[in-house]
Amino acid sequence: MWLEGWRYYSSELEVGMSFARQILASSGRKSPFDAGAVVDAIDALSDCIQACITDVDADLGEKDVAEMVRCIRLCLDCTDVCEATLGILSRPAEYDPGVVRPLLESCVAICKSCGDECERHAHEFEHCRICEEACRRCESACRKLLA
Amino acid sequence: MWLEGWRYYSSELEVGMSFARQILASSGRKSPFDAGAVVDAIDALSDCIQACITDVDADLGEKDVAEMVRCIRLCLDCTDVCEATLGILSRPAEYDPGVVRPLLESCVAICKSCGDECERHAHEFEHCRICEEACRRCESACRKLLA
Amino acid sequence: MWLEGWRYYSSELEVGMSFARQILASSGRKSPFDAGAVVDAIDALSDCIQACITDVDADLGEKDVAEMVRCIRLCLDCTDVCEATLGILSRPAEYDPGVVRPLLESCVAICKSCGDECERHAHEFEHCRICEEACRRCESACRKLLA
Amino acid sequence: MWLEGWRYYSSELEVGMSFARQILASSGRKSPFDAGAVVDAIDALSDCIQACITDVDADLGEKDVAEMVRCIRLCLDCTDVCEATLGILSRPAEYDPGVVRPLLESCVAICKSCGDECERHAHEFEHCRICEEACRRCESACRKLLA
Repeated sequence: MWLEGWRYYSSELEVGMSFARQILASSGRKSPFDAGAVVDAIDALSDCIQACITDVDADLGEKDVAEMVRCIRLCLDCTDVCEATLGILSRPAEYDPGVVRPLLESCVAICKSCGDECERHAHEFEHCRICEEACRRCESACRKLLA
Repeated sequence: MWLEGWRYYSSELEVGMSFARQILASSGRKSPFDAGAVVDAIDALSDCIQACITDVDADLGEKDVAEMVRCIRLCLDCTDVCEATLGILSRPAEYDPGVVRPLLESCVAICKSCGDECERHAHEFEHCRICEEACRRCESACRKLLA
Repeated sequence: MWLEGWRYYSSELEVGMSFARQILASSGRKSPFDAGAVVDAIDALSDCIQACITDVDADLGEKDVAEMVRCIRLCLDCTDVCEATLGILSRPAEYDPGVVRPLLESCVAICKSCGDECERHAHEFEHCRICEEACRRCESACRKLLA
Repeated sequence: MWLEGWRYYSSELEVGMSFARQILASSGRKSPFDAGAVVDAIDALSDCIQACITDVDADLGEKDVAEMVRCIRLCLDCTDVCEATLGILSRPAEYDPGVVRPLLESCVAICKSCGDECERHAHEFEHCRICEEACRRCESACRKLLA
């Protein structure tokens, strides 16, 4: 039953704070960004990576694969840029604006493109609708860090 | 405020199903594994990757770094093996037991080692306690797929 | 013998060992594996990752994409497992047979499958012929470590 | 000129272009960048990833690890950004300047920082001298694409 998978972390007696959120909260490290916005972005990136990896495989399973080629490529690009951004945001001690800002800009751009392409297929394929949602949230969370 | 980061996905009118879970649920693909167990593992792997990446950086910030070297190495190893396992489990169409089973065995082994090492530091460092928890859950979720 | 693996970068007008090879040679670290065989594997894994990433994109550019779906999926799987194996082999200090051996077995299996699938297309597509070659070498280099 | 980048693998007793170079050469795909400059960058990124992964482990093995913390963090960041850049450059069909340019800028910045930090340790540690070289070449190869 799908409900069983809801993220209740009972050992925390709390509803689902992500692990990165807990660790970053516990360590109290300084960063030029708002701490809440960083962990929001880390969670959104993690979700977007999951969604894009899974959407590529779902796209490959569709009858008219040729129609999905652009979506597959953008999901692969999105996965790669999100993974790098996740890594960089998770190591706040050496934040360098010259590295972080353009990386976030690249991430916003690919999440936007990938979300737009997924939207084109969203009426037909539920997996693209879900992936679009993950891309939009990730784009928005990264934009907040750039603001 | 940390509470703000809890994973309520309001657009779903549901409490936090992960995106991979939604996509895999929507696509109804066949696999030799129980579908619920696969998505549990995907979520646990995703969490464990986040926890290990963040724990490496927290370890590097501790005063006695020399004491944390083994923990850092195991967290780096754990991240790598979990990322591969996440990718393979997210592409169920071509599941090959000769690839998936030893990969899961490797993943169980590194999550166990990494969890054990984090446990050694858990009384002192909250970040290691949290990372231990993520490793234990990931180990358990992968073991279920091997059963 | 180290000499056998040297890479000549003609553009440098010098003999260029791969960087991992140079670093591992300079640090003289112990491992349960033959040092030469480890760096051969690291180079073969690095080449195989490059080849698979590039082959996925070339496959997506073919007219009859539907025919290439299995090849794309196996190349994606191969990239993921090779990246993990590369990471683990590059951190020899904490080698744990319980982690490394099954990971190498998984890597051998996916390189074999991916190489076989690429071979099916090799007569038609040069990119698959090249990717097959990278997979075969990587499979062989990982097998040597298991011997 | 293609010849300049050829890699001689003496163990093969043949002239061995890198696999990405061969595949990209065989497929004749269009891109806004000079084809030779793209494959130079792909090779340099691949080498830099190898060097940084290996240097992190070598740093962790030094007696005064505390002195190496910044170097470790920058090598981890450099690995992540180079991996994303490698992926994006290997999928030329959907090149989007809004994604590629800031990613290359981020990559140039982290290769510069990581190279500078490695240089600080290069007189003492051969592994840092080698990693510095890989970072410098990668920085230079990515700069050429931005020109």
